[in-house]
Order: sequence, then C-alpha cells, then structure tokens
Amino acid sequence: MDILEIIGKKRDKKVLTRDEIHYFIKNYVSGEIKDYQASALLMAIYLNGMNNQEISDLTDEMKNSGDTLDLSDIPGIKVDKHSTGGVGDKVSLVLGPMIASLGAKLAKMSGRGLGHTGGTLDKLESIPGCRINLTEEEFKHQVREIGISIIGQNEELDPADKKLYALRDVTGTVASIPLIASSIMSKKLASGSDAILLDVKYGSGAFMKNLKDAKKLAVTMVNIGKALNKDVKAEVTDMDQPLGMAVGNNLEVKEVIETLHGRGPKDLTELCIDSGSIMLVQAKIFYSKEEAKKAIIENVKNGKAFEKFVEFIKWQGGDVEYLYHPERFDVASRIIPVYSNKAGYVSRIDALTIGEGSMRLGGGRETLDDVIDMSAGIILNKKIGDKVEKGELLATLYTNKENTEEIERNVLGAFKINKNFKKKVLEKELIE
Amino acid sequence: MDILEIIGKKRDKKVLTRDEIHYFIKNYVSGEIKDYQASALLMAIYLNGMNNQEISDLTDEMKNSGDTLDLSDIPGIKVDKHSTGGVGDKVSLVLGPMIASLGAKLAKMSGRGLGHTGGTLDKLESIPGCRINLTEEEFKHQVREIGISIIGQNEELDPADKKLYALRDVTGTVASIPLIASSIMSKKLASGSDAILLDVKYGSGAFMKNLKDAKKLAVTMVNIGKALNKDVKAEVTDMDQPLGMAVGNNLEVKEVIETLHGRGPKDLTELCIDSGSIMLVQAKIFYSKEEAKKAIIENVKNGKAFEKFVEFIKWQGGDVEYLYHPERFDVASRIIPVYSNKAGYVSRIDALTIGEGSMRLGGGRETLDDVIDMSAGIILNKKIGDKVEKGELLATLYTNKENTEEIERNVLGAFKINKNFKKKVLEKELIE
Repeated sequence: MDILEIIGKKRDKKVLTRDEIHYFIKNYVSGEIKDYQASALLMAIYLNGMNNQEISDLTDEMKNSGDTLDLSDIPGIKVDKHSTGGVGDKVSLVLGPMIASLGAKLAKMSGRGLGHTGGTLDKLESIPGCRINLTEEEFKHQVREIGISIIGQNEELDPADKKLYALRDVTGTVASIPLIASSIMSKKLASGSDAILLDVKYGSGAFMKNLKDAKKLAVTMVNIGKALNKDVKAEVTDMDQPLGMAVGNNLEVKEVIETLHGRGPKDLTELCIDSGSIMLVQAKIFYSKEEAKKAIIENVKNGKAFEKFVEFIKWQGGDVEYLYHPERFDVASRIIPVYSNKAGYVSRIDALTIGEGSMRLGGGRETLDDVIDMSAGIILNKKIGDKVEKGELLATLYTNKENTEEIERNVLGAFKINKNFKKKVLEKELIE
Repeated sequence: MDILEIIGKKRDKKVLTRDEIHYFIKNYVSGEIKDYQASALLMAIYLNGMNNQEISDLTDEMKNSGDTLDLSDIPGIKVDKHSTGGVGDKVSLVLGPMIASLGAKLAKMSGRGLGHTGGTLDKLESIPGCRINLTEEEFKHQVREIGISIIGQNEELDPADKKLYALRDVTGTVASIPLIASSIMSKKLASGSDAILLDVKYGSGAFMKNLKDAKKLAVTMVNIGKALNKDVKAEVTDMDQPLGMAVGNNLEVKEVIETLHGRGPKDLTELCIDSGSIMLVQAKIFYSKEEAKKAIIENVKNGKAFEKFVEFIKWQGGDVEYLYHPERFDVASRIIPVYSNKAGYVSRIDALTIGEGSMRLGGGRETLDDVIDMSAGIILNKKIGDKVEKGELLATLYTNKENTEEIERNVLGAFKINKNFKKKVLEKELIE
C-alpha cells in the first residue's frame, strides 16, 4: 500500500478501504505522508465525496490517532453537546447547569474562539479565577460529584484532526461534509461521552450556508454515531441573527445569568430548554421531551438551575460573587450607541458581521495569539421582527479601542430593515 | 487575489483568469505559495479540467517563469520536435540529420532517460567525446552553420515546470491532459523554435494508454500553438512495440547509423521519413510532404543524410571514427539469447517491459543519480507480424551484470505470440 495508490483511488471515484484510511491517518500523523500529498487527497475527497462507511472509518481512525478519554468510571450516561460555531452562542453555559441540576452528567471539552465565532472557554475565563485547565482527574471527579465540568481540549487528543484541520484551512478544503463530519465527530468520540447532541447551524457566519447542506451534515454525523454505536442526535438551527442579545465574553456571561434566572432573551431561552430536554432524554433521566422541558422550567423558576451554575463555577475556581453581583464585571470604557437610519421592521441581522465587529472591538481573536478584552462586544437592542423608528437604538458597542467608525457603520449595515415584516417560520429540525 | 480564492474557483468548476494563473505560477515559483496549496489546485485541475484559454494561459505563464531562448538571429524557420516518451525512440537522431541535410534548422533541447524511457542526451553521450553541454552561443552558432544541434535543457528554463512536474509525480496528478500539455508545450516554447512537430505516443509505457486520450492530448497541444501563434502539428502513433530493433544507448546509435545508410528497420525508417517530411514543410523548404519525402529518400541514398550526422557529431566534439566503424563501440561482456517457447506470430511486444528490462540490464536509470552502462540493452530479433518457431531467437540481451534470470523471463513474457496473425491497421494520425 502506498499513498499514491490511495490518492489515485479517491481521485478515480473509488471507495477507500478501512486499511487504506488507517494507513493514511497513521502515516500522516507520523509525518511519513507529506502535507502536499494529504492536501491532494483532501481535494479528491472534497470533489468525489465519501460513502457512509468511509466517513465512519475515517472518524474512527482519527479518533484513535491519539489519546481517548475514558469516562466509564463515572456512573450514569455521560452526555455531551456540540454546536458548529455561532455568534452569541452561550448555550452550553445555560443548558449545562439546567440539565446537571436534574441529574445529568455533562463532561464537555470545549474550544477557544477564532475569527468571528466566540469560544466557551473564553467566556468561562471572563469570570475572574475560573480555570479551564483542570487535570483529567479533577475533570472526572467534578463530573462525578456535581454533574458538570467544561475544560479545554487535551492536546494529545485527536492529533489527526489538528493536522488535517490546519491543512484544510490553507488548501480550500474546509467546506466538505465528510471532512467536517469526521473532524467534529472524531473529537467528540475521543472525549468519551455516551450520548451527544449536535447543533448544526446554517446561514451567514456558519460552515453551512443553507438548510439543505446543514441537514446533510447533520444526517452524516448521526450516521457516524449509528456506525460507531453512539447515541447521536442533531438539531438543525438557523443563524439569521446572533443568538440572544449579547455578543462578547463577559457580556454573554451576564446574559447567561439572566437566562438562568428566567429573564433571558426568548430565542436563547427556548433553544436551551429545547436542547436540554433532548439531552435529558438521551441521558435516560426522562422518558419524554415534554416531561424534561417542564422539569427544566421548574428548576429555572425555583433557582436550582442558577445554583448549579454557581456550584459549577465555584468548583472550577471562579469568583462566584460576580455571578450574584454581575455589576462587578468590568465594563468597557467606551459605550457607543448605533441608531437606525430608517423606520420599519428588522428582517435580518447578519451574524458574520456582528461576530467580526465584536472581534474588532477587542472581544475576539484574529489569530490564536491575540489577547481578548473580556469586556468588549456588542449588545443587540433589536432582534428580527422588532419594529424600529428612525433614530431608535439598534445596538450598543462596548470597547476600549478608539477609531471605531468603520465598525459602527458595519454594525448598522448588518441590520436589514424592511417596510413590512413577514414572519418567517423558523426552520428547526431534529435528526435522530 | 490569494491562492485560497484561486483553489476555490477551480474546485467549484469555475474558469481561472489570466491574472489568477499568473499569480499562481509567479508565487509558486518564488515559494510564497506552498507545495500543499499547489497540490490541492493540481488535484482540482485534474478533476475539473481547464478550457483551452486556461491551458494556453497556463502554458504561457510557465514558459515566462524563467529564461527563454531567443533564436531570432538565426536566419530561417527553426524547427523542433518532441516525442512524449518512448522505448527505442531514436527518431531525433535520424530525422535531425535527414532534414538538416536539406537546409532545415533543428535547434533542440532534449532530456535524459528515466525509468523505462531512454533519453536522446544519453544516446549522444554514448559516442565518445560527444558533448551535450554546449553554451547557448555554441548551440546557436552550430545551428546557424550546420543546421542541427541537440543539447541538454538550460537549468534556468521553465522553473515552474520543474517544480510542478516533481510535485505531480508524488501527488497522483500526472495523467491530466491540461497539465501534461502545458508541461510539454511551455518547455518547447521556451526553447525558442518557430515550428514544432509533436509525436504523441499511446499504448503500454506511454503517458496515454489509448488512442482517444492521445488524440485529445494532441489536439490540446496543437490548440496551445494556435493560441500562442506557433506552428504546432502533432502525430499520434502507437507504442504496441518498441521502435526499431535496438533498445539501449550505443545499441541505438548503431541502429541510427544503419538507418541513415538506408538499412534500418522498416518502422523506424518510415516514421523518420514521414515526420521529417512534415517538418520540412513546416520549415517551408518544400511545399508538399510528398516532395519532401522524395528528397529525404534521395539524401539517404546519396549519403548526404549520414554525412550530416557525422558533421553534427563532430561539431559536438564526438569521435566520428565510431560512426564510420560502429564495431568500435563497447560491447557488453554478456550476450544472452532469449528463445521462444512456442510457435506462432508475434502480435505484441510490451514496450514498458522491454524498457524496464533494458534499464535493469544497466542501460537506464532508476533514479537520476544512477550511472548508465552505454553498452547495455536489448536487441529485438522479432517484431510484430513476424513468424516464430519454438526455440527460435526472439531477443538478445546485452549486459555487464550477473543474475539476469528474472529479466530474461520478463523479456520472454513481453512477447505475445498467437497461433494466427491478423494484421492490424496502424492507427496514425496527423493533427494540425
């Protein structure tokens, strides 16, 4: 077997065997197979595709390319969740405490933000003292004791994905369903949970630009779960606007607190309750989604969801006084209102533009070395469907930077305002 | 403009502009664009193709990536010839003197042999003293004075092709018509001739395995000529057997001498006269191929073609006593007969197997660092259509190596012998 044969087969639209996929992953990780050979194969996969068997073989081989986490000594069904990137997506921080307060075990490895998308780890670190670098033992102990822990991804996990992801980024081979699906699923499977809920976003700022492709990706990942005997479900949700009102690290944490108190934005609250109830069924704590939903709503009302959040942050070393008194969080030195220049109804808020705006205000990273300003970001004062008068407040920028005129213009431009508003039925689907 | 955009366009089946192709070639040669990015683009070109405009733009940009040879100070139409690789292909050495003896100007840069294919430069160097490293001035002076010179390719010529060719070889992107055509044509155009005759081979041991693909490649290269205002014609010829009887360096030179005396093998003689007459028309020395053919045959008979060969070799520093007395050439220490193990008619002689056999006997290179044994090679004693008795001589191996049993078996196996022989009409076509 050699790599030229493998490239040639995929180039000629043939199906790769498990052995060939094993050979490729093993020798690419070791450096025997060169980047220029891997990129030729990636382009052939991009253009000629892979069947379900190849995709699950690739996922399994990537998963096996490094360490895997063994959570089997934690009693019960361990659940995990993954969103394919989003702007204003703080779902894990809301939903995690909600379901843990009802007995679920969420053992989650998360990532940092890059470009226009935020990262759960950065949001956690905006709470003074909060650690995301727990040891494996601390992580497992915390999940066992309180039902929730979120940490950074172990460096030894899935080295194949690290190399392939970096290579895809510079060779025009990112937007391939087999490659996206195997990348996400190999990492999730390596981190050891029994059941996984995926949130596949589509729209501006997401990997998948339309519903059809998002569904295809969701189905592909659910099929990988079936092939590898994991309980995987996938929701497909739109990204026609950022999730919630807040974009930016401590701004989002404050929104998480509000939402756990039952005072959060409608879209965020609904999505967290909905996803959380699916996960509670996956965890076999409830038999039906409806029962689970009721229980979550109850635990928001009675304060148990918020108290679980406090416990979670306390165990990770965070100063919980900030959670009881969110006014203590740093506030940016400049608060810039963005006013509407026309009247009508908001029909769209471009998530990519808002995400990039927040990043440029200091709230995100352009490269992995950039340092984040935890207080920077954007608060949306209007969302889709809202009526707006000319001169009314659309958004508020928070920053410690000067010369933000271009960002202000871009944020204004992100709001599409029409004379009339036709309510769009939200396309949302659960693939299982 | 950036390389990711360019890869993305070709990946999405879009047409690349001249500017984009220029950007790619310039920055790949300079090293700004990495091998792993170039290989992703090559695979996208392999799978999604290129239109005629893209192919001629690519060819022109590759040609312009380094030095080009200016032959305009040599009076008359300079002609050049290229064969897409062959086993036993010594056509240039026969046809060159034939047409130069009638006033044509052949200014040819040639290559070395690698793997199963021989190289004109190595054949020339099997004549003691013969130099293939003339300076540009010596080369041009010789063409001006005697009408023929053959040298190695200038290292500064077409660096884009050197890099791309090496990369294609290790990334499964060799057999792409746009990439083969631009590789051949950019080199030929950089070496400055006005008119080019191409010989596109098909069959075992050739780039193109069948007539259809060979024609497609030929048409593509003729179209490049049209787009770039060069007189390019292409013959499509089969490679169902090696050309002539001799394979191996000084064995082939001896066959060249015989052929120039009018005593050469029929297939080689016919091809050289045919191709030579096309080139004489391209050089505008004759108006019709028929007239040109007659003149070549006359110059073989009256000795002028052979005398031009002698003059050519003398100008390149070769000891012409070898040409007058071919028995002076080194003869290998072991001469091994290969006998037929059945009776019938030869229907095919696998050129790839014979070429590899000659290489392994010492007559070729496995890697570019190998040293060639000029006396090693294979003489075919039968060709397609010949009647053979069991135990009759099929081929003779010449070598200074021991342990050649496997090669002997392979050479025997290269001969396909059938009970009956159905004469095949030779598929040969001129594309112009």
